[in-house]
Amino acid sequence: MAERGSHERAQIEAILDEGFVCHVGFASDEGTVVLPMAYGRDGDRLYLHGAPANHLLRSLGSEAPACVTVTLVDGLVLARSQFHHSINYRSVVLFGRCRLVEDPSEATSALATVVDHVVPGRTADARPPSDKERRATKVLCFIIEEGSAKVRTGGPKEEPEDLALPIWGGVIPLETAPQAPVPDEPDGSATAPAPPYATSYRRPEER
Amino acid sequence: MAERGSHERAQIEAILDEGFVCHVGFASDEGTVVLPMAYGRDGDRLYLHGAPANHLLRSLGSEAPACVTVTLVDGLVLARSQFHHSINYRSVVLFGRCRLVEDPSEATSALATVVDHVVPGRTADARPPSDKERRATKVLCFIIEEGSAKVRTGGPKEEPEDLALPIWGGVIPLETAPQAPVPDEPDGSATAPAPPYATSYRRPEER
Repeated sequence: MAERGSHERAQIEAILDEGFVCHVGFASDEGTVVLPMAYGRDGDRLYLHGAPANHLLRSLGSEAPACVTVTLVDGLVLARSQFHHSINYRSVVLFGRCRLVEDPSEATSALATVVDHVVPGRTADARPPSDKERRATKVLCFIIEEGSAKVRTGGPKEEPEDLALPIWGGVIPLETAPQAPVPDEPDGSATAPAPPYATSYRRPEER
Repeated sequence: MAERGSHERAQIEAILDEGFVCHVGFASDEGTVVLPMAYGRDGDRLYLHGAPANHLLRSLGSEAPACVTVTLVDGLVLARSQFHHSINYRSVVLFGRCRLVEDPSEATSALATVVDHVVPGRTADARPPSDKERRATKVLCFIIEEGSAKVRTGGPKEEPEDLALPIWGGVIPLETAPQAPVPDEPDGSATAPAPPYATSYRRPEER
């Protein structure tokens, strides 16, 4: 990461901060595996949380090399020609190593990093882990050694003569739209009023 | 795929049909790489289209084993405890092999499969590839040999005593929301009226 220019570094960080699900690829006994995991960023580290099968967690968590990719899809690009159809997206591909976080106090703060990355502000309200939960918390720490960003924006690339064709060309923007929060009230129980970070949930945006 | 029960097979296919961006993992000279690519499904095949660097396309396209993962994020699950926070999602992890589609007529129909998968109905309007484009079309064919689906739905799992805490618990549903199409009209040119598949774009939904 240190070798990247400050502009690309800022771009990589902005994409990582807007996303919250990554795809982690690594070599397992059964070959290459790609798993979706939630994550939180702390500088050049990503803390990863998910439920990979235990034998996968073992091969992934033993400092083996891994590739972590985060992709944000921004729109569908419809060109007049099939050939020039595309997708507007921002993605980051990271190379590094993963280790299982075994120290209970690091695991606790790593869990908080993930929770606050996905729902900013949530750890101020949610109950911290008990001793038992602290010991049961399985988080991975991915140290970013190398990263690159790739971004496509704007309208279709067209062959000049295609612009005269009677075919619509343009972009269908796609947004992730949070819906009204659904309270969890099992067996007629009542929960507290929904906090602003739930009623007005939004991701941080690139500046 | 043949060994999967019909229910899981239908679930896998529904997730693949709703998604349109996958994450492809494979072993390259530089270690495991995970790249986002657009895809279209044709039975037990996925046609993949993207712009991986040429040397990656070579290692990916030479019948090497690959893992293709598709993840749909449906909501954020806020438990009263940090520990039980989760994400509602549907994902498919596929194992198989990738080959570069070199036959121009297969490449042409593969491109159409991808375009119509991402924007159903689009190939009826968009200009088919010219001979030059046909030869330049780089599509990969991934044959699914094995696949599994994983789905989380519903509210948070809670410790019974946590339900009495004055902390909001529930789900923030997330939807992919297509916005009003943005016409491509460079230099004051006019494009045709936007077709219904652009003004009312939506993904197929699981039944």
